[in-house]
Amino acid sequence: MLHFDSDYMRGAHPEVMKRLMETNMEQTPGYGTDCHTANAERLILDACGLKDGKVYFFTGGTQTNATVIDGLLSRHEGVLAAGTAHINVHEAGAVEAAGHKVITLPSSGGKLSAETIRQYISDFYKDSSYEHMVAPGMVYISHPTELGTLYTLAELEGLCSVCREAGIPLYMDGARLGYGLAAYGTDVTLKDIARLCDVFYIGGTKAGALFGEAVVATRPDLLGHFAPLIKQHGAMLAKGRLLGIQFETLFTGDLYMRICRNAVQAAMKLKEGFIGKGYELYIDSPTNQQFFILPDGKIDKLMQVATFELWGPRNGEKTPARFVTDWATCQNEVEELIRYL
Amino acid sequence: MLHFDSDYMRGAHPEVMKRLMETNMEQTPGYGTDCHTANAERLILDACGLKDGKVYFFTGGTQTNATVIDGLLSRHEGVLAAGTAHINVHEAGAVEAAGHKVITLPSSGGKLSAETIRQYISDFYKDSSYEHMVAPGMVYISHPTELGTLYTLAELEGLCSVCREAGIPLYMDGARLGYGLAAYGTDVTLKDIARLCDVFYIGGTKAGALFGEAVVATRPDLLGHFAPLIKQHGAMLAKGRLLGIQFETLFTGDLYMRICRNAVQAAMKLKEGFIGKGYELYIDSPTNQQFFILPDGKIDKLMQVATFELWGPRNGEKTPARFVTDWATCQNEVEELIRYL
Amino acid sequence: MLHFDSDYMRGAHPEVMKRLMETNMEQTPGYGTDCHTANAERLILDACGLKDGKVYFFTGGTQTNATVIDGLLSRHEGVLAAGTAHINVHEAGAVEAAGHKVITLPSSGGKLSAETIRQYISDFYKDSSYEHMVAPGMVYISHPTELGTLYTLAELEGLCSVCREAGIPLYMDGARLGYGLAAYGTDVTLKDIARLCDVFYIGGTKAGALFGEAVVATRPDLLGHFAPLIKQHGAMLAKGRLLGIQFETLFTGDLYMRICRNAVQAAMKLKEGFIGKGYELYIDSPTNQQFFILPDGKIDKLMQVATFELWGPRNGEKTPARFVTDWATCQNEVEELIRYL
Amino acid sequence: MLHFDSDYMRGAHPEVMKRLMETNMEQTPGYGTDCHTANAERLILDACGLKDGKVYFFTGGTQTNATVIDGLLSRHEGVLAAGTAHINVHEAGAVEAAGHKVITLPSSGGKLSAETIRQYISDFYKDSSYEHMVAPGMVYISHPTELGTLYTLAELEGLCSVCREAGIPLYMDGARLGYGLAAYGTDVTLKDIARLCDVFYIGGTKAGALFGEAVVATRPDLLGHFAPLIKQHGAMLAKGRLLGIQFETLFTGDLYMRICRNAVQAAMKLKEGFIGKGYELYIDSPTNQQFFILPDGKIDKLMQVATFELWGPRNGEKTPARFVTDWATCQNEVEELIRYL
Repeated sequence: MLHFDSDYMRGAHPEVMKRLMETNMEQTPGYGTDCHTANAERLILDACGLKDGKVYFFTGGTQTNATVIDGLLSRHEGVLAAGTAHINVHEAGAVEAAGHKVITLPSSGGKLSAETIRQYISDFYKDSSYEHMVAPGMVYISHPTELGTLYTLAELEGLCSVCREAGIPLYMDGARLGYGLAAYGTDVTLKDIARLCDVFYIGGTKAGALFGEAVVATRPDLLGHFAPLIKQHGAMLAKGRLLGIQFETLFTGDLYMRICRNAVQAAMKLKEGFIGKGYELYIDSPTNQQFFILPDGKIDKLMQVATFELWGPRNGEKTPARFVTDWATCQNEVEELIRYL
Repeated sequence: MLHFDSDYMRGAHPEVMKRLMETNMEQTPGYGTDCHTANAERLILDACGLKDGKVYFFTGGTQTNATVIDGLLSRHEGVLAAGTAHINVHEAGAVEAAGHKVITLPSSGGKLSAETIRQYISDFYKDSSYEHMVAPGMVYISHPTELGTLYTLAELEGLCSVCREAGIPLYMDGARLGYGLAAYGTDVTLKDIARLCDVFYIGGTKAGALFGEAVVATRPDLLGHFAPLIKQHGAMLAKGRLLGIQFETLFTGDLYMRICRNAVQAAMKLKEGFIGKGYELYIDSPTNQQFFILPDGKIDKLMQVATFELWGPRNGEKTPARFVTDWATCQNEVEELIRYL
Repeated sequence: MLHFDSDYMRGAHPEVMKRLMETNMEQTPGYGTDCHTANAERLILDACGLKDGKVYFFTGGTQTNATVIDGLLSRHEGVLAAGTAHINVHEAGAVEAAGHKVITLPSSGGKLSAETIRQYISDFYKDSSYEHMVAPGMVYISHPTELGTLYTLAELEGLCSVCREAGIPLYMDGARLGYGLAAYGTDVTLKDIARLCDVFYIGGTKAGALFGEAVVATRPDLLGHFAPLIKQHGAMLAKGRLLGIQFETLFTGDLYMRICRNAVQAAMKLKEGFIGKGYELYIDSPTNQQFFILPDGKIDKLMQVATFELWGPRNGEKTPARFVTDWATCQNEVEELIRYL
Repeated sequence: MLHFDSDYMRGAHPEVMKRLMETNMEQTPGYGTDCHTANAERLILDACGLKDGKVYFFTGGTQTNATVIDGLLSRHEGVLAAGTAHINVHEAGAVEAAGHKVITLPSSGGKLSAETIRQYISDFYKDSSYEHMVAPGMVYISHPTELGTLYTLAELEGLCSVCREAGIPLYMDGARLGYGLAAYGTDVTLKDIARLCDVFYIGGTKAGALFGEAVVATRPDLLGHFAPLIKQHGAMLAKGRLLGIQFETLFTGDLYMRICRNAVQAAMKLKEGFIGKGYELYIDSPTNQQFFILPDGKIDKLMQVATFELWGPRNGEKTPARFVTDWATCQNEVEELIRYL
């Protein structure tokens, strides 16, 4: 059976496992106060071109989003996001459970535009009863989005501008950031992101780590009194070094980018294969998530040899389906899948 | 100056004030355990044709909505509502502050359709990852809606059906319920509402009371352990009898309906007047809220003699405006306004 | 039947009712933006000797406490309070429902001492794991306390000092503030309170108003973005002027102090009477709450002619009981009660 | 340097690491729906002697406590706990952040007594204003406690009885459960705990796992709709199998108990050593945490060769100190430490 349902089906990259083994019997203080975590922070800030940011490590995406959003918003504020945003749809209401509203805006291909945000904020403060409404307190984007699409540098610059004008932080969910950075044709680098976003996270769970997301606060004061908040959200790992060691490994010798490139190459090969066999793209994604429209008969057949995710309910004839590659997907897995088409 | 901005600009109906004066020096136990409150509950249940419901009194609409929704939902559930719903727009995120998501659905004229809800719930449980999403836990509607529109009896029956199929409660925000019940041409009675909704409230603040909303739970078990929740929401009035006395008065001798009818008559006269002068309706409302599209020059002139609310930002030529009547609006106020057109 | 159970059993002082009647048909804008509310704010700030504070009006004590505490605390902070504090015992967990911990400290006669607080804060920051603990973010006291006791000026100055040293606000719950200010022998004035506390409230519900508490923020920046928070807590009254008019009346011509003095005089007469008949004080309170230890046989007899509250469970022989007077208690009510002893 | 500060300073038991390596390239579905997790659940239920319980895996103690307590309590309820309880002191207010009150009761040696709880609940419902108070909704105990003490079987039976009488669940925090079960002289087995508690967790983080806690709900309905709640609390691990594999390993061939016994043996040797050298016990603990009273001069000297935790602030002469052993502590580490005394 071939598996293309998601990018969190395997464990960690062998290099990461090796380091976890090597360090296993070290005795270090807890809660991220160890030297591996400090080193990982330094390596990440370096990769981001940041001098005095702060890095906080988490164990998963929903946890990260809920805690960061809670840390950035005041009680009277909500987070602006696309209606399709992960925080709005697939996090079981974690943002609301912490008391904050997700204010949804129209989006296209999973992306928010600077203009939409500017208009919303402008209209908001023109409304005479705005004190009875939830104030826009930050902007949430994901890169890549849930649909595998990417912001261009110009679009990110626009988002950055509108947020700075409004005096609210721009936060990027980078659950699959590596795959976005490794995408063919993207003009966005990690340093751009660190320059344009206020807070973002570098996803590890889906990109080579056993688990782990590295939140980068580009200014150290952005997330004040964050340690107790992390604890309160149940997100402080006793053996914090486990996160430190994994990111230390991923950010040594360009490993993170190297393994993400593999996933993108495999995804591009997959796309080529599907197109070559005459299938239609549902969305044209340059990242490790590929979406095709498949006849339902073909879906049934493919499901006998491969796992993948239907993107929406079957409607009787054709249904979009998602195929995901990861750092470990190998050439012949893709070739085998394409042969079955 | 004429005032048509809202229906909460005056105090209470004189009959209500009279009773508050008469009872002022009575000594009664607190927190709604007095005889006036008990009597008000009985009168309201009678008017609703309910034998064993429960009535809870609150001091305002946002407080009522936040507390009732908190009482009806489990932690993993959210409330389905129109995007234009008061709870989604004008309550400062009170529902989210208590930890619950407002799940917005497409609506028309402020109204939700049974079909929209049925489809949403059906799709929801077909989604294999629905345990990562906020479950639909109740339906919120308002009657009249924020736009002065009304559900028909058939529409309410449809909403009731879909909620019962799904096993979730139907909750009606009745901030202006009296004006809806008194509307010309409505086929919905208070008894229908009590039969079709699980919980609803009868608005007093905008309809003759100094303040006060009467929540009717049509089955006594619907809002279990509700007293501590009311307290927790800061909604338990020490001198609870103040609410009891007001609703006792409003529900004696049909006073509530009588005074609401006055507002509707005035509103219909107003509508006639505007139409007679050639103005276009923005929405055709049969209730005490009337919406007209006015040329911006006319708006400026009218604002010298009357207060009213613009419904959206001015766009340079024509803007919709809202005019609201209430239980105390008198014939000559309306006539005077129309003269100024 | 004589009623001494509480100070919220009657309506409002006749002068307050008169003003509500006189203003009833005025049309004013909502949510506290009317002229009565502005005037009430000015009168209160004047009485407090404050130039640039802010006053916010609420409808009840629990609502006030929950909203103010939510406004003053950051998410990682809790409120220091006596174990006997109203917020810790009798508010159904409203503070916690908004996400904050009540950190209880040892108290004496319902009062916190500066030394206890200083020690707690000092120990807290000495603890190497304090980031895993709830930080002390403010101090809550009540004056009079739940036991009818009062802080001295020196004690309040001590509390003020420790809070300023620690950089956290001192908040006073003044549900019965008037009765405290009117107490025989107190050396604390309203101006002292305004000088020493950061935020406090002047209780109206128990002291002449139908309902209403006036929160005084002694610096305008203390409760930033407070309007949406008030709304979120369900505490924004549509007809906000009702609160404005009541406090306008109470703070015109010294009415508030005058009527509170009546309650204290009646309470002192009551105390004299009980002592004269040989009963033991449970607590020696100079305010409108009096606590005596009564033999259980006497309790049964008294309950046939008067209502009052037992202070704790009966233990078979003697039980403390609370008798409360208010602005309307008259001489012969007290005399009649004493005759029954 | 010798390390005795805590039991979470190393990685995982080599057997656990080995299994993580062996399974690393397996592809399994996410979120705990894999076969390792199912197998771990079965092994744990078997060890507990439970037929139809449910097991949920978490990554840390605070996360576990906050989520389980949120799952067990209704909104109007709080959790009864010792004042010294971890949830009351060292979890940064996570329970309150989710809206619940920790109701603290007097305790002795970190333990609650059945009698204290029974009295509290009885008094609570005798109070006429109990609907204004936070209802006791569950009991939290830890075993071993924060002080390394253990409940006897009779004590646990008493706690179970009082909870069943009151109809509220008994929840045991077992962060160090293995060390409690392996303690010399305890008469409590895992099966006893599964019989007497409603929900409890078996700590892995401090006992052989990289991270992980296994929550056992002894009846499947106790934690209804728990998956979305887990997600909401940020506690659903994408690669859930990581928890499954670790507990699968720990509960195969008695590994969990075997390695916990090692820690207890080392701790007993340590205790002997300290006593032999004339040091006084601060608390007599039969588990892997040992508390001694040390002269401050001795503390300074010891700190040059070993790390350990001071239990409270130094007071100038003698201070209690905690020494913790774990599954990996070896004989000569203990001997070396004792030599330094």
